[in-house]
Amino acid sequence: MRPNAIENEGTVPIANDRLERQIRFIVEADRLKQVLRRNRLVDGSRRENTAEHSWHLTLMAVVLAEHANAPVDLLRVLKMLIVHDVVEIDADDTFCYDPQGMASKEEKERRAAERLFGLIPEPGGSELKALWEEFEARQTSEARFAAALDRVQPVLANYLTDGGTWREYGVTYDQVMQRLRPIADGSEVLWDYVQGLIEEAVRRGDIVK
Amino acid sequence: MRPNAIENEGTVPIANDRLERQIRFIVEADRLKQVLRRNRLVDGSRRENTAEHSWHLTLMAVVLAEHANAPVDLLRVLKMLIVHDVVEIDADDTFCYDPQGMASKEEKERRAAERLFGLIPEPGGSELKALWEEFEARQTSEARFAAALDRVQPVLANYLTDGGTWREYGVTYDQVMQRLRPIADGSEVLWDYVQGLIEEAVRRGDIVK
Repeated sequence: MRPNAIENEGTVPIANDRLERQIRFIVEADRLKQVLRRNRLVDGSRRENTAEHSWHLTLMAVVLAEHANAPVDLLRVLKMLIVHDVVEIDADDTFCYDPQGMASKEEKERRAAERLFGLIPEPGGSELKALWEEFEARQTSEARFAAALDRVQPVLANYLTDGGTWREYGVTYDQVMQRLRPIADGSEVLWDYVQGLIEEAVRRGDIVK
Repeated sequence: MRPNAIENEGTVPIANDRLERQIRFIVEADRLKQVLRRNRLVDGSRRENTAEHSWHLTLMAVVLAEHANAPVDLLRVLKMLIVHDVVEIDADDTFCYDPQGMASKEEKERRAAERLFGLIPEPGGSELKALWEEFEARQTSEARFAAALDRVQPVLANYLTDGGTWREYGVTYDQVMQRLRPIADGSEVLWDYVQGLIEEAVRRGDIVK
């Protein structure tokens, strides 16, 4: 093991040195802590970064798993949430209410997934890439529940910061409903709860109807 | 469901309203993003917070599970890592090389665990508290592996930031070895790797021998 290899980007890892390659990916992943999302922490003090957002989603999954529409394999949900935004290291966060950004998001993130998960020796790299694809496709119960949590969490942040990004960017009721309706595919219980928050946000003028 | 209950700390939740209580815990947990650790991000730009640290450990667990000394239940490892530092919301981060801080840590964290996990309706609250206790006790294979990762991650950060907290606080070789030796109980492979980093850090003068 060459300890200094992790800081030397130019060093080609020894082909069978799995740990060296794994550590290199883990060090690269540190950059997700510097990707900023639009929404703020619930006390409004600063914008949230994608790494801490990802942790928050895993905690939500553990606490809220009973509300998934269908029984879920919690291990797969957690793995998906841990890696679902790793692509933002290369592709940056795309604001969900920015149509232009959303149009180019898929291609940028696909390239990012190739590069980043490609850093991990097999079968790990392919497994994590497949989990990311599963999350994006929202076809399995696990992906639907994980995607629901990913939409619920910023609702809480916006609701608790005087409308947050809804108010800041003049997001309309129709946009909000279009973005959030997939919550129902993962959890009817959470969708019911979120609809209550949206109604209240409309009453307060946080969301323009 | 009363949407505005989550922002009113004084509202007593309806006893059987599980979701309301779960959401309240999830909102409270947001504060972990504001607990600062001593070590910095690997690019040295700022101190790391405990929420993003927790995410990084879960990613490490997924990628490095094959290096655990004994086969581990990865779901339990991940749950443990997700909640292992939640107590810092009340107890703050304790610098591992501060003997006074470490002496009062246990009692402070125990009280924090009572309060914080007590927010979650049963059986969830007891389950998460038990996972935190299991992590602290380091008796199971899962806890040993999780605790190993918790020690490896700041080593990478220190190693990549010119010695980081080792140099900043004049940490000695003996202190480092005492703190890091439990890595071997979770993963001999990772301990072997970390020893290489320590040796190099000593050579560079980052750690005083």
